[in-house]
Amino acid sequence: MYCIGVDIGGMSIKAGVVDTHGNILKKGRVVTDVDGGARKIIADIGELVLSLADPEDKDFAGIGIGCPGAISSATGVVDHAFNLNWHNVALAKELARIVDKPIKISNDANVAALGETMFGIGKQYKDTIFITLGTGVGGGIIIDGKLYEGGESKGAELGHMVLVVDGEPCTCGRKGCMEAYCSASALIRETKKAMEADKNSSMWKFSPTLDDVDGRTAFECSKSGDVAANAVVDYFVKYLGEGMLNFANIFRPQAIILGGGVCAQGDYLIGKLKRYCADRNYGFAGTPEFDILTAELGNDAGIIGAAGLIYAERK
Amino acid sequence: MYCIGVDIGGMSIKAGVVDTHGNILKKGRVVTDVDGGARKIIADIGELVLSLADPEDKDFAGIGIGCPGAISSATGVVDHAFNLNWHNVALAKELARIVDKPIKISNDANVAALGETMFGIGKQYKDTIFITLGTGVGGGIIIDGKLYEGGESKGAELGHMVLVVDGEPCTCGRKGCMEAYCSASALIRETKKAMEADKNSSMWKFSPTLDDVDGRTAFECSKSGDVAANAVVDYFVKYLGEGMLNFANIFRPQAIILGGGVCAQGDYLIGKLKRYCADRNYGFAGTPEFDILTAELGNDAGIIGAAGLIYAERK
Repeated sequence: MYCIGVDIGGMSIKAGVVDTHGNILKKGRVVTDVDGGARKIIADIGELVLSLADPEDKDFAGIGIGCPGAISSATGVVDHAFNLNWHNVALAKELARIVDKPIKISNDANVAALGETMFGIGKQYKDTIFITLGTGVGGGIIIDGKLYEGGESKGAELGHMVLVVDGEPCTCGRKGCMEAYCSASALIRETKKAMEADKNSSMWKFSPTLDDVDGRTAFECSKSGDVAANAVVDYFVKYLGEGMLNFANIFRPQAIILGGGVCAQGDYLIGKLKRYCADRNYGFAGTPEFDILTAELGNDAGIIGAAGLIYAERK
Repeated sequence: MYCIGVDIGGMSIKAGVVDTHGNILKKGRVVTDVDGGARKIIADIGELVLSLADPEDKDFAGIGIGCPGAISSATGVVDHAFNLNWHNVALAKELARIVDKPIKISNDANVAALGETMFGIGKQYKDTIFITLGTGVGGGIIIDGKLYEGGESKGAELGHMVLVVDGEPCTCGRKGCMEAYCSASALIRETKKAMEADKNSSMWKFSPTLDDVDGRTAFECSKSGDVAANAVVDYFVKYLGEGMLNFANIFRPQAIILGGGVCAQGDYLIGKLKRYCADRNYGFAGTPEFDILTAELGNDAGIIGAAGLIYAERK
């Protein structure tokens, strides 16, 4: 048995044949023709899928799709995907006209959460929280091995949990969301602030102008003991740790898995987070601790996790 | 068919015969003999149950129990219940020696959440969040009509979600938890602060000394337009609203149900909360809104919800 996983992005659409162990056997991709509109993109996805597998093959169990935006997974409709300019697109139904197979869709962060828990770093666990730290902060919730998307599949907006009432402005309109403290954009904002406040910081060597600052600047200079860089890293760890502790108190997951570019910091980041969270886990002696892990599927998480939507259904 | 619901409190243990519609047909209570120890209390519970129903009766489907503290619901063990001075008490197993019936136990806030959703104000809904605003802030999560307790039944600690990193100290050891802003204790703290800052406030008439302040002081004086009282109410509504919005973004429930003394404020509180939350619900057009309700089962929530533990199992 195998499934096709499809990862729809604003730039390209990637697809792969994924076996029951989460291995990608064959891959393909196509440029996302945003200007061509939904019908054209769905036709392209259909063609991509047909180039990878034969619908007549009984081993071909179905197609899972991860898509950015607000998804109605029960009906297979993309309600809104702004970077595709899609509104109310019946993706599953339209694609089924081209490839008549079971089709499941979900939000891209949810799909990555499922992939990492079924087939990636979290595969020894059944209850995990996945947090992806990119331009924004997204997330996914796995309960008893299954994706939990919230009511009408519109929950799990983990980046939009307020950590500081009246805090930093967030893209969602509220103030103080986790996204406004733990995204790469927030890390860069704080790095620039720290550099402007300390003209002698070694961060100015790593990133000669403020335009050169990225998510690595503070972390790399912190490793060589730069005081201002240390303070930025401590800030990032503190807010991320507080957010993780909040999820722990609500879900008590076995593990929290972090994705996104900042995870390249690996043990340096994870060690600091573990120390921050260790003393602050809520409750009495015996309250289960949670492991903290970095995602391992990388760019393939979308394809593998999308295929997982079909496999999880069959369990 | 009927069940017995048992509500264990630090002062008394209440039990009732509950029918399949959540009606209490018969009630009993016994003083909680904390000094007598776990064995004595369990014997008392057994006697109370036997006074209400005959274990030989085939219509008697089981016993549900709500207990304060940290519970392992899968094994029926009370890990810690500090106000009972219980640690690692095998409640379900020990009680089954006295009354040989199916026995389910859960945390008291979880049980109240289940009761309000199965049989109370939330019965038209399947996905709800229950928040109880008392000395502390507790909560319960209902997903698809079932109680979700988190990993190892140690989650759903809704009061211990930090809303303000580095904020007001919380009893749990962290700072800025929802409990430190939305409990009756927090409301009283803020009321006292406002009264000390404004010696002309009408709150001094309602509560002549600071020792007279309770959860009603600010609300009642706010209704007659007292400026300082209004500010306290706005503060309470703001933090409670932000906490509710956080839960909405994670779970996207159909309704959030509020319990505890402050709910006596009814529509005055709910109206303000609805106005606060309306503009701040995350997401795109079409993101489901949530209803805001006050609990209606009152002191019976514990008995009815405990019985619900058995009924929910049989669904």
